[in-house]
Amino acid sequence: MRVLGIDPGTVTMGYGVVESHNDDLDMIDCGALVTSERSPIGERLCYLYQELLCIMENYRPDMVAVEQPFVASNVRSALAIGRAQAVALLAAATQSIPTQEYTPAQIKQSVANYGASSKAQVQEMVRLQLGLKEVPHPDDAADALAVAICHLREAHLSELLARQEEKR
Amino acid sequence: MRVLGIDPGTVTMGYGVVESHNDDLDMIDCGALVTSERSPIGERLCYLYQELLCIMENYRPDMVAVEQPFVASNVRSALAIGRAQAVALLAAATQSIPTQEYTPAQIKQSVANYGASSKAQVQEMVRLQLGLKEVPHPDDAADALAVAICHLREAHLSELLARQEEKR
Repeated sequence: MRVLGIDPGTVTMGYGVVESHNDDLDMIDCGALVTSERSPIGERLCYLYQELLCIMENYRPDMVAVEQPFVASNVRSALAIGRAQAVALLAAATQSIPTQEYTPAQIKQSVANYGASSKAQVQEMVRLQLGLKEVPHPDDAADALAVAICHLREAHLSELLARQEEKR
Repeated sequence: MRVLGIDPGTVTMGYGVVESHNDDLDMIDCGALVTSERSPIGERLCYLYQELLCIMENYRPDMVAVEQPFVASNVRSALAIGRAQAVALLAAATQSIPTQEYTPAQIKQSVANYGASSKAQVQEMVRLQLGLKEVPHPDDAADALAVAICHLREAHLSELLARQEEKR
C-alpha cells in the first residue's frame, strides 16, 4: 500500500510518500511546496493544487492522509490550514483517491506510541521507521511522512483486527 | 462591471452575480450550492469547485469577491470556512479572474452604511439596492449578493477618489 501524507499549510505544504511491504516501510519521496506570502492567495492555492496533482499522478498513491488539527493558535491560522487542506482534498478527489484525516495526537500516538510526543521525538521515530540516515528536511516533509506512517499503521492494525474477527 | 459574490461554506455556498451600470446595480443571478454533510469532504469540495467553475464560465465575472471572517465561533468552523474559501479562490485563479476578500464588517458598512447592521437590515438593503420585490432566498444567496454589492461600492468610491485626484 502506498500513502501520500500531507502536512497542510498555504505557505509551506509538506508531502511524503511511504510504501508498506508487510511490516516494512519505505520512503518513496518527500519534500515541501513553498509559496510566497506576497503572491495573491488564489495564485498560491493554484500552484499548490497543480503541484499536488503532479505528485499524485507521479506516485499514484492508494490513499491520501491529511493532518487535521482540532486546535489552532488563532482563527486566521485555522482559515489558512483549512484552505491548504481543501487543496489537498480536492486534488485527491479529482484523481478518485480516497482521503483520511488524522489529528496531531493520533499521528504522534501512532508514530511514536505517545500522543504528547515532542516534534523532535516524532521526527526521530520517522527516521528510524523509514531506515533513514538523517531526519528528512524540512520539518514539513518529516511531518508529512509522519502522517503517511500514521495511516499505514492504522490500516495495518485494522487488518490484524479484521483477521482476528474472521478466525472467531 | 460584473462581480460574483461568494458566501463561503462547505455545506451551503451562497453565490450572487451583480452588474453595475453607472450607479445602477442589477442582479444577474443568485443561489446556493448545497452539499450533504454525510458525503466525504473531498467529494463535496469537488462538487462545489465544479459548480463554481460553471457559474464563472456562464457569467464571466470581472471579479470574484469572497467573504473573509476574522472571527469564527470555533476552530472547526474556521477550518470549514477556509476550505470553502479555497475552492472559490482556486476556481477564480484557474479562470484568471482576480479575487478580493471582505470582512463581514466591511460588507455591512458598505451595503447598509453601518458596520454593526443586523442580518435582516443588510438583506433589506440588498433587496432595495437591486430593486427586487423580495429578499432573495436562501439567506446564503442574499449574503453572497451583499458581498458582490460591497465590492461594486468600494470600486465605485475608489474610482471617484481617483477622478478627484486627477482634477487636482
